[in-house]
Amino acid sequence: MNLSARNQLKGTIKSIKKGDLMAEVVVEIGGQELVSVITASSVDRLGLKTGDAITAVIKATEVMIAK
Amino acid sequence: MNLSARNQLKGTIKSIKKGDLMAEVVVEIGGQELVSVITASSVDRLGLKTGDAITAVIKATEVMIAK
Amino acid sequence: MNLSARNQLKGTIKSIKKGDLMAEVVVEIGGQELVSVITASSVDRLGLKTGDAITAVIKATEVMIAK
Amino acid sequence: MNLSARNQLKGTIKSIKKGDLMAEVVVEIGGQELVSVITASSVDRLGLKTGDAITAVIKATEVMIAK
Amino acid sequence: MNLSARNQLKGTIKSIKKGDLMAEVVVEIGGQELVSVITASSVDRLGLKTGDAITAVIKATEVMIAK
Amino acid sequence: MNLSARNQLKGTIKSIKKGDLMAEVVVEIGGQELVSVITASSVDRLGLKTGDAITAVIKATEVMIAK
Repeated sequence: MNLSARNQLKGTIKSIKKGDLMAEVVVEIGGQELVSVITASSVDRLGLKTGDAITAVIKATEVMIAK
Repeated sequence: MNLSARNQLKGTIKSIKKGDLMAEVVVEIGGQELVSVITASSVDRLGLKTGDAITAVIKATEVMIAK
Repeated sequence: MNLSARNQLKGTIKSIKKGDLMAEVVVEIGGQELVSVITASSVDRLGLKTGDAITAVIKATEVMIAK
Repeated sequence: MNLSARNQLKGTIKSIKKGDLMAEVVVEIGGQELVSVITASSVDRLGLKTGDAITAVIKATEVMIAK
Repeated sequence: MNLSARNQLKGTIKSIKKGDLMAEVVVEIGGQELVSVITASSVDRLGLKTGDAITAVIKATEVMIAK
Repeated sequence: MNLSARNQLKGTIKSIKKGDLMAEVVVEIGGQELVSVITASSVDRLGLKTGDAITAVIKATEVMIAK
């Protein structure tokens, strides 16, 4: 499956913190940390756990630039 | 200024392509490419140009996980 | 590849209109029309054309409810 | 009231799960399920409950295409 | 029609600039300017023009805080 | 730091309600209320509290128009 979302960065899950509905997933990508908030049920559905090799997917319109 | 958006990745602008209203900015971050679509007027307002050191800013809720 | 985005609806591309940077893709899903705006370069990268069987992907946090 | 968001799909609420701040609303639309995450206070403000006829509203820029 | 999106600010359209697919709508709200980028076809569909009394609608999850 | 996000509205925090992962921040801006949902850890990281002078930041593509 190819996805229109342009940014697909390979990384590793460092930690997962589940709340009642949402979950916070910290990913290491090339030495930097990227934080993702998804639903807790998606964490379960994908079977995500610390150490998993995953891809972080981000739409181009969601990337802001600061200078 | 500190921003609630959790992900702030330092990088360098590789290319800018301006359309009539929107612009596509390609950023190199730790050896990976990240594509950003912002308004062309923001490119002008920030004076963005190839080679600029910038920060890519992404809200945690906009980072999806694929496995 | 499984994706954290919860909503994945199967449909067919009815029309594609490309602008200078962005593109408008109209999809038919179960008798209803869904409009997607993605980058024109993603249309090229995925090789999208009218009649293609595709999946529309939408994050749960992007679905509002009106009543 | 007309809204600029292009996608407005009529459906029925199948279930609501409220967390401390957010809520997950499952909607049936033409035989398919669509999941929405909104604030729990919006569920209260709109008086949403299972069986309600509602409209799911999605901006065109939030619809990705996978192929 | 009530919408789950929490922020609904009344204002007046100051200017509209249409590109090939997208449009930039500048709104005055309580003495401040708010810029909206929507599809050009939504501008046509709603019949938006300078001077119109409109409501700017923003989901709570899209409002970041800087300090 | 200048940010590509066009809308930067100065305001004051009226209330903060923290959930397990997310938090709801109500801001007063020119006599109107704006509600923001960010992560609870961002509330801590920025040290946000009632009465703080802050800036609400919103991307132009996230502002819908209703008429």
